[in-house]
Amino acid sequence: MKAVLLAFAALFSSAFAFADIKVVYHLSEGIPQASRAVNNIRNHLAADPKAKIVVVTHGLGIDFLLDGATNQMEQAFSGAVSDLVGKGVEFRVCNNTLVSRKISADKVLMEAKVVPSGVAEVARLQAREGYVYLRP
Amino acid sequence: MKAVLLAFAALFSSAFAFADIKVVYHLSEGIPQASRAVNNIRNHLAADPKAKIVVVTHGLGIDFLLDGATNQMEQAFSGAVSDLVGKGVEFRVCNNTLVSRKISADKVLMEAKVVPSGVAEVARLQAREGYVYLRP
Amino acid sequence: MKAVLLAFAALFSSAFAFADIKVVYHLSEGIPQASRAVNNIRNHLAADPKAKIVVVTHGLGIDFLLDGATNQMEQAFSGAVSDLVGKGVEFRVCNNTLVSRKISADKVLMEAKVVPSGVAEVARLQAREGYVYLRP
Repeated sequence: MKAVLLAFAALFSSAFAFADIKVVYHLSEGIPQASRAVNNIRNHLAADPKAKIVVVTHGLGIDFLLDGATNQMEQAFSGAVSDLVGKGVEFRVCNNTLVSRKISADKVLMEAKVVPSGVAEVARLQAREGYVYLRP
Repeated sequence: MKAVLLAFAALFSSAFAFADIKVVYHLSEGIPQASRAVNNIRNHLAADPKAKIVVVTHGLGIDFLLDGATNQMEQAFSGAVSDLVGKGVEFRVCNNTLVSRKISADKVLMEAKVVPSGVAEVARLQAREGYVYLRP
Repeated sequence: MKAVLLAFAALFSSAFAFADIKVVYHLSEGIPQASRAVNNIRNHLAADPKAKIVVVTHGLGIDFLLDGATNQMEQAFSGAVSDLVGKGVEFRVCNNTLVSRKISADKVLMEAKVVPSGVAEVARLQAREGYVYLRP
């Protein structure tokens, strides 16, 4: 029975081995982390163009997704975000953060989607949708 | 055979989709990270009341679980910890850290449990008990 | 059918429960994080000697794997790295980082292996090889 299970497990694993890799990037630190993340994601997609990447942000992690946000070199983030969206990357912003920081949802870039809770979303993507975790 | 496997995989996944989500929060940085984590966990449970959360601490991450610990606003952590324990959250403290920092286990809040190694616990919960990872 | 699936799932899980735990340590911050990681990994292996640990580095995370690198107390990292390699730990360095920081691959310690992308490697180990994640 154990041999059958192991054989099945091997087949089962190989059936999954062809699915595209899904990765949740977890951001909560602010602009420097966001700059690293943008760079990391570009490199990630260059190495694995089929990777599905969702960026979940809360706390200070949402700052680069607000209207007019710039990096440490005063360059707008919006272009980089649009470019990544064009490559299939999704951006999600925590509503709890918007409420507690008194930021209107209008300030969030159109390309990003507001979710009820950033941390619950990070867990849900892993537990329910097969994403793996990466904190840039 | 592949079709059968894929069908089975789908059923297998859906069988699991109803299990509650289990999340390990990994803390090793100190009081500011602990303050964020307490807030994150409250929001997490508000969004997903059935989530099972275990907080594993080592290094400076254990500080908020020591007797008399206060946050950056001089507020005691013990009340927040008790409150979360009442909601099913578990707190674990690394014994290697206690030994290397020469802290007596007596100083650890009663609500927290000492485990031999924090990092091994973070890995074990994911590999053996189906937890997903989150670093606040 | 659901009962059969759940029974199978239980057996399936138990078949896997005996596999050694595999952990990817993700480093991108620099020397202080590397010092913590070396210490964490020693404690991890003391608690679970069969754990398979792969350390994936990019950004400033690669610094401790360059020739002549020392920790905050001016001690060379190379001895600690060799020691961990002797215990089965593997070290991987991101080639994108080498290129963008204009560091020759010759500078990387012989015990470390260069991979095309650090972030893609962190995701691949989790999604394809059953590793769990830990950020020290």
